[in-house]
Amino acid sequence: MSLDLKSLVRTIPDYPKKGILFRDITTLIEHPEGFRESVEQIAATYRGKGITHVAGIEARGFIFGAGVAIALGAGFVPIRKKGKLPGETIGQNYALEYGVDTIEIHADVVGPGHKVLLLDDLIATGGTAIAAVGLLRRTGAICDDAAFVIDLPEIGGAEKLRAEGITISSLMAFDGH
Amino acid sequence: MSLDLKSLVRTIPDYPKKGILFRDITTLIEHPEGFRESVEQIAATYRGKGITHVAGIEARGFIFGAGVAIALGAGFVPIRKKGKLPGETIGQNYALEYGVDTIEIHADVVGPGHKVLLLDDLIATGGTAIAAVGLLRRTGAICDDAAFVIDLPEIGGAEKLRAEGITISSLMAFDGH
Repeated sequence: MSLDLKSLVRTIPDYPKKGILFRDITTLIEHPEGFRESVEQIAATYRGKGITHVAGIEARGFIFGAGVAIALGAGFVPIRKKGKLPGETIGQNYALEYGVDTIEIHADVVGPGHKVLLLDDLIATGGTAIAAVGLLRRTGAICDDAAFVIDLPEIGGAEKLRAEGITISSLMAFDGH
Repeated sequence: MSLDLKSLVRTIPDYPKKGILFRDITTLIEHPEGFRESVEQIAATYRGKGITHVAGIEARGFIFGAGVAIALGAGFVPIRKKGKLPGETIGQNYALEYGVDTIEIHADVVGPGHKVLLLDDLIATGGTAIAAVGLLRRTGAICDDAAFVIDLPEIGGAEKLRAEGITISSLMAFDGH
């Protein structure tokens, strides 16, 4: 009997602001079989495809990305907010609703000959994910795959990523914004 | 032939400030066998001890904690900075060199009957770890074990945790501060 992973995601209304239905993955990762099965299903999609590194976006992307990296026998690359990585970094700006944010990776972590799977818990507008793919590709690494636990297709981020030549997988989708 | 995990940790001098030798675990997690072996060695110490949840401290503790949770068949509990968790939380303040910080967990995530392993990448002063143990214990859960990738024994955090009745494990130790 397979586990209903979607039923393990909790919806919190009006978070972080009025009108938003926040899809909370903490209830999924707290569930031992739910967490293990989520990671295993993501890993199964990419096994045997030559992924050398899994890059997870701070902070929830670290949780799933670390598990998938181990399951695939790949290295793990943390994509962090500006100023959090101790070594030499390269960064990429991206637009927020109001203002600009920056993500960074270590400059020497991946490059030509590496094949990177991008991982995050959720894809909404896709802004951070597109910035992350751009950053990883600037190193000379191949980054043509991105996996998410949750897709919110009505917001259109997955579509934007596909337009950048990225193949997407997700474990579940929710209607609405 | 066993892997020398300690040699995979990079030391960055004068980060985040002059005189500090920063022990950087990103070079360890980027190394597929190094990352997998680190997680497996931590998990091996706790297998069969009834751990129901692994609690990882944001953000590097998420990376190792997620791997160990999956290896142990346990749930994963994120311990986050104030204001980052979407549900109802409980928090614990702790002193920094200058000022005070707060960590939080979801109020309903663990409680009586649960046995939690605390996980972080590094123990230095132990301030965050002691706050985390206090927070987890306030729920009624048992939290008597903490695992770290790196111990800096000269700073004395591990000793302080032991004084709170916590049994510690670490994969490696470095001299100095």
